[in-house]
Amino acid sequence: MSHYADRLLKAIVKKQNPAVVGLDPRLEQIPQFIKDEMVKKSGKTFEAAAQSLLKFNKMIIDAIYEIVPAVKPQIAFYEKYGIHGIKAFDETVKYAKSKGLLVIADVKRNDIGSTAQAYSQAFLGRVDLFGEKATNFDVDCITVNPYLGIDGIKPFIEDIKEYGKGIFVLVKTSNPSSGEFQNMVSNGKKMYEHVASLVNEWNKDTIGKSGYGSVGAVVGATYPKEADRLRKLMPKSIFLVPGYGAQGGGAEDTVPCFNENGFGAVINSSRGIIFAYQKENREDDFDVAAGEAAQKMKEDINKALKKAGKLAW
Amino acid sequence: MSHYADRLLKAIVKKQNPAVVGLDPRLEQIPQFIKDEMVKKSGKTFEAAAQSLLKFNKMIIDAIYEIVPAVKPQIAFYEKYGIHGIKAFDETVKYAKSKGLLVIADVKRNDIGSTAQAYSQAFLGRVDLFGEKATNFDVDCITVNPYLGIDGIKPFIEDIKEYGKGIFVLVKTSNPSSGEFQNMVSNGKKMYEHVASLVNEWNKDTIGKSGYGSVGAVVGATYPKEADRLRKLMPKSIFLVPGYGAQGGGAEDTVPCFNENGFGAVINSSRGIIFAYQKENREDDFDVAAGEAAQKMKEDINKALKKAGKLAW
Repeated sequence: MSHYADRLLKAIVKKQNPAVVGLDPRLEQIPQFIKDEMVKKSGKTFEAAAQSLLKFNKMIIDAIYEIVPAVKPQIAFYEKYGIHGIKAFDETVKYAKSKGLLVIADVKRNDIGSTAQAYSQAFLGRVDLFGEKATNFDVDCITVNPYLGIDGIKPFIEDIKEYGKGIFVLVKTSNPSSGEFQNMVSNGKKMYEHVASLVNEWNKDTIGKSGYGSVGAVVGATYPKEADRLRKLMPKSIFLVPGYGAQGGGAEDTVPCFNENGFGAVINSSRGIIFAYQKENREDDFDVAAGEAAQKMKEDINKALKKAGKLAW
Repeated sequence: MSHYADRLLKAIVKKQNPAVVGLDPRLEQIPQFIKDEMVKKSGKTFEAAAQSLLKFNKMIIDAIYEIVPAVKPQIAFYEKYGIHGIKAFDETVKYAKSKGLLVIADVKRNDIGSTAQAYSQAFLGRVDLFGEKATNFDVDCITVNPYLGIDGIKPFIEDIKEYGKGIFVLVKTSNPSSGEFQNMVSNGKKMYEHVASLVNEWNKDTIGKSGYGSVGAVVGATYPKEADRLRKLMPKSIFLVPGYGAQGGGAEDTVPCFNENGFGAVINSSRGIIFAYQKENREDDFDVAAGEAAQKMKEDINKALKKAGKLAW
């Protein structure tokens, strides 16, 4: 399989859009007509919940796959519904891939070396199945947490090199209390800067033809000043940028996450896109509302990039 | 449901044993006769792999449930086999509970507030299923990663208070590179000490009749000096101590993790117990070998505690 960062950049150029859609379905926000259909089939069960998520996701994907380069399902919203939920996650991934979308699984996995390897095999690499190699969730990229240091990251890096996959390492997260540990100062540098320097090192060995490597960084749109500094510390890493939209980040806040040439970042919006219908009470055409919101987000970000002289196309 | 830390302490006293067994099954190390049986039934499939894990686990549980107070399945080894693997995880949890064991799910989950809540509902709390409350994996306790700060921890704390559950927050992990970020010095204190101080704060509101709270800490047996310092910083938190056995920690290295009265820690061993049979080539009675290894670990730790004047019974 070809190089992950190269594939992602190619998809961004093709769609002229660095925005990705977070598939974080919340049962209580899924249109009633979908839930009614599933409850009628399977009762008020986990299966009905999972089937509701899946149908919702498929309709969202149908509405956005020509607009965005990738989707980012957050696995917590599927694990919540147990085995049936994980099945819906798996089928969502497969459906998104069948529509030509890249899939970034937001799983934030982390552990010591031998266990990190098991996670890596689950999502990125190959599993030994009685002497034969098999894949499991087989997404393009996952998010990982760096708290355990390099030996919890290495197994992922080995798989991304071998199988053309990617990781985004949590550097500066978008939530209000992200500074609690991430902003602690050690040797004159903040914790997230130390993490960034190591991400830059880890990335060096994974650079593709696009000039970008497959070890990226999560940098919240809610911290644009920090993003500016981080951009310099990790020039060849792609940033995955949460926090746009519902969490408060605007299009202009995402601009520092891009390099001068307009590449190097993907901006995620979840609730703002998939539940856009709720603002306008358009439950019956929630998918159309999501498509329109995705189109608007694309235009907003392109406009902000153009204003900053960073538009690539 | 009654208070988690109180339940755990009661189970430790009943078994006179602070040692727990890590259920981290690796297909390649599972006895051939189990794999042959499952491959005969389902071919070389993920189902056969998952059924092999499950049968292995059940036989291990049968051999150790009278010896140890709890088991700690590491979910990565199940996720590796996809949906079938997660099903084996779920059935392992149920079987362990049916044998009176507490279950600590080692999942190291972490995310921003609203997503952390979804993880918490998956493992500890309740899920809203079309207006009705339902449980999913429903373990007693999980491990969580603190990198995102308090708003990624709060949802778990709310559920542990409401449903009598627990969490262990990663403080100082057992792996060789744990110091990379955890040992960085900020304001004269190491990162893991800052985390420890916050764990101590978070725990205050969860103290049970035993004097211990349900917000515990992961502290590796491979770092006994650090453990001694951490014991003082979190006097009322239970420590989950990995790193004993296969990772190099000895019984005496675990002693600093206990308070003077001999309580306050659970020591985990995974490979050293469940694959004990491999040292002696006893594939046919691997479960007996595991039971013996668990018994020996209990004696070793009790002996080390006695030597240090910390034995509680």
